[in-house]
Amino acid sequence: MSTAKSTAAASPTSTTRARPSDRSRIAKLLNPNSVAVIGASDDPSRIGGRPISYMRSQGYAGKIFPVNPNRATVQGLTAYPSVAALPETPDVAIVIVPASAALESVTALAERGCAAAILFTSGFAEIGPEGAAAQAKLVEAAHAHGMRLIGPNSLGLINPCKHFYGTFATGCELAFPKAGGVAIISQSGAYGAHLMAVATANDIGLSAVILTGNEADLTVGDMLQMVVDDPDTKVIMLYSEGIKEAAGLVAGLEAARRARKPVLMMKVGRSAVGSAAAQSHTASIAGDDRVTDAVLKELGVVRVQTTEQMLDIARLATRGVYPANNTLGVITVSGGAGVIISDAADAVGLPMPAMPQASQERLLKLLPFAAPRNPVDVTAQYLNEMSLISTFTDALIAEGKYTSILGFFTYTGGVASIAPRLREQLKIARNKHPDCIFALSLMASRDLIRQYEEDGFAVFEDPSRAVVAIEAMGQFGRAFAKPAGLPAPIVGPVQLPASNPSEAAAKQLLASAGIASAPEEVCTTIDAAVRAAEKIGFPVVMKIVSPDILHKSEIGGVLLDIVDADGVRAGFNLLMQRGKTAAPQARLDGVLVAKQLKGGVECILGIHQDPVFGPVAMFGLGGIFVEILQDVVLHRCPFGTDVAEQMIRSIKGAPLLEGARGRPKADIKALAEMLSRLSAFAVAAGPRLQSIDLNPVLAMPEGQGAYAVDAVIEVTE
Amino acid sequence: MSTAKSTAAASPTSTTRARPSDRSRIAKLLNPNSVAVIGASDDPSRIGGRPISYMRSQGYAGKIFPVNPNRATVQGLTAYPSVAALPETPDVAIVIVPASAALESVTALAERGCAAAILFTSGFAEIGPEGAAAQAKLVEAAHAHGMRLIGPNSLGLINPCKHFYGTFATGCELAFPKAGGVAIISQSGAYGAHLMAVATANDIGLSAVILTGNEADLTVGDMLQMVVDDPDTKVIMLYSEGIKEAAGLVAGLEAARRARKPVLMMKVGRSAVGSAAAQSHTASIAGDDRVTDAVLKELGVVRVQTTEQMLDIARLATRGVYPANNTLGVITVSGGAGVIISDAADAVGLPMPAMPQASQERLLKLLPFAAPRNPVDVTAQYLNEMSLISTFTDALIAEGKYTSILGFFTYTGGVASIAPRLREQLKIARNKHPDCIFALSLMASRDLIRQYEEDGFAVFEDPSRAVVAIEAMGQFGRAFAKPAGLPAPIVGPVQLPASNPSEAAAKQLLASAGIASAPEEVCTTIDAAVRAAEKIGFPVVMKIVSPDILHKSEIGGVLLDIVDADGVRAGFNLLMQRGKTAAPQARLDGVLVAKQLKGGVECILGIHQDPVFGPVAMFGLGGIFVEILQDVVLHRCPFGTDVAEQMIRSIKGAPLLEGARGRPKADIKALAEMLSRLSAFAVAAGPRLQSIDLNPVLAMPEGQGAYAVDAVIEVTE
Repeated sequence: MSTAKSTAAASPTSTTRARPSDRSRIAKLLNPNSVAVIGASDDPSRIGGRPISYMRSQGYAGKIFPVNPNRATVQGLTAYPSVAALPETPDVAIVIVPASAALESVTALAERGCAAAILFTSGFAEIGPEGAAAQAKLVEAAHAHGMRLIGPNSLGLINPCKHFYGTFATGCELAFPKAGGVAIISQSGAYGAHLMAVATANDIGLSAVILTGNEADLTVGDMLQMVVDDPDTKVIMLYSEGIKEAAGLVAGLEAARRARKPVLMMKVGRSAVGSAAAQSHTASIAGDDRVTDAVLKELGVVRVQTTEQMLDIARLATRGVYPANNTLGVITVSGGAGVIISDAADAVGLPMPAMPQASQERLLKLLPFAAPRNPVDVTAQYLNEMSLISTFTDALIAEGKYTSILGFFTYTGGVASIAPRLREQLKIARNKHPDCIFALSLMASRDLIRQYEEDGFAVFEDPSRAVVAIEAMGQFGRAFAKPAGLPAPIVGPVQLPASNPSEAAAKQLLASAGIASAPEEVCTTIDAAVRAAEKIGFPVVMKIVSPDILHKSEIGGVLLDIVDADGVRAGFNLLMQRGKTAAPQARLDGVLVAKQLKGGVECILGIHQDPVFGPVAMFGLGGIFVEILQDVVLHRCPFGTDVAEQMIRSIKGAPLLEGARGRPKADIKALAEMLSRLSAFAVAAGPRLQSIDLNPVLAMPEGQGAYAVDAVIEVTE
Repeated sequence: MSTAKSTAAASPTSTTRARPSDRSRIAKLLNPNSVAVIGASDDPSRIGGRPISYMRSQGYAGKIFPVNPNRATVQGLTAYPSVAALPETPDVAIVIVPASAALESVTALAERGCAAAILFTSGFAEIGPEGAAAQAKLVEAAHAHGMRLIGPNSLGLINPCKHFYGTFATGCELAFPKAGGVAIISQSGAYGAHLMAVATANDIGLSAVILTGNEADLTVGDMLQMVVDDPDTKVIMLYSEGIKEAAGLVAGLEAARRARKPVLMMKVGRSAVGSAAAQSHTASIAGDDRVTDAVLKELGVVRVQTTEQMLDIARLATRGVYPANNTLGVITVSGGAGVIISDAADAVGLPMPAMPQASQERLLKLLPFAAPRNPVDVTAQYLNEMSLISTFTDALIAEGKYTSILGFFTYTGGVASIAPRLREQLKIARNKHPDCIFALSLMASRDLIRQYEEDGFAVFEDPSRAVVAIEAMGQFGRAFAKPAGLPAPIVGPVQLPASNPSEAAAKQLLASAGIASAPEEVCTTIDAAVRAAEKIGFPVVMKIVSPDILHKSEIGGVLLDIVDADGVRAGFNLLMQRGKTAAPQARLDGVLVAKQLKGGVECILGIHQDPVFGPVAMFGLGGIFVEILQDVVLHRCPFGTDVAEQMIRSIKGAPLLEGARGRPKADIKALAEMLSRLSAFAVAAGPRLQSIDLNPVLAMPEGQGAYAVDAVIEVTE
């Protein structure tokens, strides 16, 4: 545990630095053949002593080279006075010297040809601008020779499978992690160490524990790529307080999905108060949490709320079964527990279809007291007739075709006289159906639970927690099976104006990307306005046109329901007068005459430039739906029409577009086309684009299109 | 565990039977001085042998009288051939004989003067109508002499404080429950026994375990009253699959609230699939789950979703501190954990205000690395300076005025060299502030956790679970502190018509209870209609009046926007003609002429006769709010205007009534008055009332009232 309150601080050079993308060098961090410890201590309880003590007690097979100018030996090993004096170049170095000496050590290691270094040393970006400058120098010195860095201010890196302990985490003194298939990557050293301790206490084996510290060089995204490449890692747990480098993270998450390695992420700072705490802790920019949610969902990451959820899901995920169409069959010895499980499955949206009628009748013949529907209740009768367990479980999978099975056996599963027979019966069903997810809810000694786990079952005390974990397997399955979406539309180069465009200019810009507005014309004279209105057809809407008036309705600059030429004439004069009164300095470019659309559903389409993930598109229904109910959906730009349509249909108010309550169906196809084009436009427009608001967009009845009625584009000047 | 799939089945006689309400007799069930075991077995592993074996091994201090006509002794005790042969009248009897012999035993016990009997015997209402009839006879025989019954088909009753084991639950063979302050009442025997086992495995002490079986006589509500009266019980856990007798349950819950005993309830069958499982399991009528939710909330019950939540909250609740204005202060050694806790608190609505500025500055002087805002992060520095713990915790309570404290110490709280010093520091703060809720999140051996618990802390491994439990203490606090609401309005006797009234008749009936409709008049001639319209003022609405046409708009029986006398004339003829065409047999009573109200907010007020809880009032906004978003609130009838106003303000769309987005504020006072009067009307109307729909009700701008525009009343004919 670090004594500094900040473990990950902004690195001003992180986006501009050289990044030699040498994956084989980085891979050495997890599996070094030799490791130098710079600042090694003879005292195994000191920070400089712990890595050596841990590795030797656990049986690290590589070479350890302590570097300490004041001693001939360290913990019984030959010590060397300097990096230069080492008998060979170490794969990896651990640097524990004071901040003032860190640059010298890093330079010497880089020059010597070391692949990567883990920097425990603190006192850099986390303490302020001076520290950040010193930190940048470390990176520069390392990169000059292609060396990569973890930290500084890192609690280290562990590979329990190889017994490599590049860490000073005190948690190891209580219990060393068990080797297994779960990798932990954490921006917080203290919380990552906690996670390791909880995983160990809960008998979950680990393939890596990586505490990224200040991320001056290697980021969470890089570490993600590293464990995706690592054959021991099956499942990845990520803890993040603020995403600093979106591109690397996204690339890492995409690599994990391709490799079918489930990623569980705890991204904290969800709440307003949480964000305040996250800011003071990491000084990192917390992106809008809704954006993070949308992006993680897109990339197939399961976002968890609690540590317990993280471990539960990881425990089941290591079994490696991820059904895209997940269904749950339940075998229980208590009807009450069956109902609790059904409620829990319903709450997380995990389907529990009924058994086929014929199967139900067959099971009732075997056991008239049974409830055969699903949950299948064998009652306490199984205690007299243990084969009911294999018969009924087999029927669930073979006939009910469930991809996941949850068995509830309460404390009876832990009774010495029952457990061996129960295990035997469960194994019969298990062996027949190796591609099924099998979870058990029972209470037993830790040793007995381990035996059930070795039999191929994931054991949970609380059945509701098992349900949450099972549902997550389906999320992974759907993410892994998801086909590449349709390509985003091609939008030509977009030339943003130097300052915020007028509504008409904004619409023109959007029209070039195929985004339709209502038929309209900008007119500078009364006669032109009348001609335009007659061409468009009454009723029309009239609006003031000025680059200096952004919110027209606030100054009365919009007139509705104009039904004849006289109305146009009067309206023209009124608008010009209001424009002059409200903003005497404003440039008035004329009056927009537009078709007034009736019978459409009001929607909002928007773009928001997210500081972390770039342009993000938003869709929602107009008015209270967005402003009071916050019923919106977000997605990273760009995307094709298939994703756009999924977005539109995902909001709670979607039935309003789909013809609920006798309404005409809206033109969702046209709406999806517009949303998808808007997403491509946002990318083509580049980072100067701040936001777009198409509010309202009218979704007309099916086949009649969708039109932006108003458009506001904001750019960086 | 029972071998029957049903533990609680419908009792046809339950509502009409005689119910001697003898609380002192019932109390003997928990604390009998003597117990007879009818059908006692010498074999301690058999159902008839277990109660005796359990009681003797645990040291039950009362007398045990085995009844067995075939043996002189049972498990070393003198056995008696019959109830009549017993040397004295036992307080309580346990009946284990076959179903065919049960009536004889119950009759003999009742005649002997036994206070109450626990019936393990199954084969009654849970197997069908014949069993139900036999069950009714048992109750009759018992009540003839004032004896009360638990079961039949019950797994029994346990009082761990008195070592009374009137049960055959096998779970006891693994671990006997520890004496403590938590009572379990469960309709499911198997699940209740599971709950007991989990509580015991988690070191939660119990004051009672009551498995109600078929509830032929004593119901969940009776058992609730019994544990409220029991001085050992501090907290009550309830598991229910279907509420059969609402009055007793409500009375029991109200008694618990008055006695400041928190009630935690798991009422399953929430989901559609869950309900199907609950039906097949208990054959009881599951009331609408939203109604149950509303009623439990009203009565101060915390409804839990999982067993784990139940135990977590119970663990903390036994500490007996229930602040009505609960706030959380956090002391942590990991900033990351602090953020997780903040997010969790935000998710459940538990406030975490910041420390006062001056306190923050003072704490920063003590520890410059600290985060002093709340969460307060003492960093790993506390390992060097343990007094930081008491200083900072004391500051949180004394200066931050938090009613609840959560300390996060991860595995360091379990380290042998740290724990004693940490405990000492925590105790200093604890002793200074005995009225504060103290929870800890740490990992330690079971023994060490017990020591922390004895020091006065509730220990949770996962901090998010601690937050959920802490939040629940505030729910109890608010429920216990809630003043009696305003009285419901007094509504004179309501004379419901023999069949569904017409709209006009419905409105007249409601008007007698002070529920205002828009100004209107029923007219039988064209001239009368014109006069009425001129009196009311244009524009008006016209509607057909017929007791045979319930849904007028479906036949075109409603005309809007009628602006002059000619319109009234034409409308009258049109409506009469449409009425005749659509329903040639329909009685046409004329045409309703009503004021057309503009500028109001459309609401729906309704009454639904719930089969369990009686009339329930509903409030929501009109249209999509109810039908698509299901944004409604429910409450048992009757209630005063204060409750009505809270209901109105509690829906998500409430800002629409409160003046959001520049709208005029609606007359919420008038709306609340109407809702409250409607609730009183529903009660006065009696059980023949099936439903009322006031849809829409127009809530006019502040000071202008609220008017029912349409009214439909359905009655049982």
